[in-house]
Amino acid sequence: MSKLKLKIVIVGAGNVAWHLAKELQKNDQEILQIFNRSVKPAMTLARKLNCDFTTRLDALNTNADLYIIAVKDSAIEQVSESLVLENKLVVHTSGAIEKDCIKHERNGVFYPLQTFSKEKKLNFKNIPFCIEATKSEDYNTLMRLATLLSPIVYNINSHQRKVLHVAAVFACNFSNFMYMIADDILQKEKIPLEILQPLIKETASKIKKLKPKEVQTGPAVRGDKSTISSHLNYLEEGAHFDIYKILTETILDKNKNEL
Amino acid sequence: MSKLKLKIVIVGAGNVAWHLAKELQKNDQEILQIFNRSVKPAMTLARKLNCDFTTRLDALNTNADLYIIAVKDSAIEQVSESLVLENKLVVHTSGAIEKDCIKHERNGVFYPLQTFSKEKKLNFKNIPFCIEATKSEDYNTLMRLATLLSPIVYNINSHQRKVLHVAAVFACNFSNFMYMIADDILQKEKIPLEILQPLIKETASKIKKLKPKEVQTGPAVRGDKSTISSHLNYLEEGAHFDIYKILTETILDKNKNEL
Repeated sequence: MSKLKLKIVIVGAGNVAWHLAKELQKNDQEILQIFNRSVKPAMTLARKLNCDFTTRLDALNTNADLYIIAVKDSAIEQVSESLVLENKLVVHTSGAIEKDCIKHERNGVFYPLQTFSKEKKLNFKNIPFCIEATKSEDYNTLMRLATLLSPIVYNINSHQRKVLHVAAVFACNFSNFMYMIADDILQKEKIPLEILQPLIKETASKIKKLKPKEVQTGPAVRGDKSTISSHLNYLEEGAHFDIYKILTETILDKNKNEL
Repeated sequence: MSKLKLKIVIVGAGNVAWHLAKELQKNDQEILQIFNRSVKPAMTLARKLNCDFTTRLDALNTNADLYIIAVKDSAIEQVSESLVLENKLVVHTSGAIEKDCIKHERNGVFYPLQTFSKEKKLNFKNIPFCIEATKSEDYNTLMRLATLLSPIVYNINSHQRKVLHVAAVFACNFSNFMYMIADDILQKEKIPLEILQPLIKETASKIKKLKPKEVQTGPAVRGDKSTISSHLNYLEEGAHFDIYKILTETILDKNKNEL
């Protein structure tokens, strides 16, 4: 098989567009153009890539093989409708949006299952790609493209991807929010979050080999009511109190149901 | 300073006792005896260490330099009261219990801030030790002992330790519970949790350099209401729904207050 060399237009210039465009270029794909509504991020990214950019639909480059829409979820449908293209593969990169939100006949999804922040470099070799396409030749193209970037590629349909996205919100967004609450609590006592780093690392690494259920520790799973009430007492009222309470009660309930 | 060589009695035979006793012995400390109410775990651990064990208070070895109580939080006070010892250093290993729960004049705390499961090996060099003692010479002994096991040793008083423990419940126990919910959700669709491993790892590692607040991603922090309601719709009712809702609302609120 000949080496893959696609001409690509990136629609959007946010976190995902940023990381993905750079990685695609690094892997010998040709980024023809960045298309984005506001000029500044488009220009910044285009300069980084040394490619063309536009903010106007009538200046959209229509000669690409692949159009990657990496804009916020609520804009995907509208943005895709505005792209007037003939017989072109158009994909989005979202975990939450159905493939068929893109009305082009040759549509698909190219979803990198990772958390992106501009300030944080990523090793794409550790990013699972979830791909989907209406036409099998497009699926094959996306599969080849994903495999260029990462060894972890899954065939995931829109329903599975939605479920995966809900699970990812718990595993990533909500666990990060737990770190944020821990940081808030420690800040009041002028203790740096650094002291919890080894614990956070160990907690995340434990579940590589064991199920989260098998390694649940702490006062709730031990049913240690005196520590629980001392903690609630310390938290007093407010959001942290409510969150501690509902999570502890759910852990206690799950345990009880298994006895 | 001469090399530290303490004679130690370990009270308890659970997760912490197990890991700690082995590590102390590995670092040339002499485990004289395991004292535990039930015979089987005491015997198993004592065999592993090739040391004495007893389940009877009247057979407690009273010649040790240090007594480490590693039993469940609710039993610490009672167990310590039952230890009849003269001028001996007695410590516990708990994050939640005050130092002065131990009524011996020479009391202290030797708290390894980590999550322990018997099935999972630990590198003690990555465990922060939080120590505290009433008498300064005992503090020095505990400091020397902790430094033998780990380069990360903190001087933490009982109030700080309690706060640290509350924060650790969020950062460790509750984030593991988030992984467990993610696993539950994926299991229904027969998707393995493995697919989320890179995301979980990246989420935990991001906060080494950046604050959790700076790297919060996901529909809640973006205020993406359509994805949020689609997720809630998928979760229907029950504990996962309630937890998704309260965490999302708290993230939304925090964001609003900062605008």
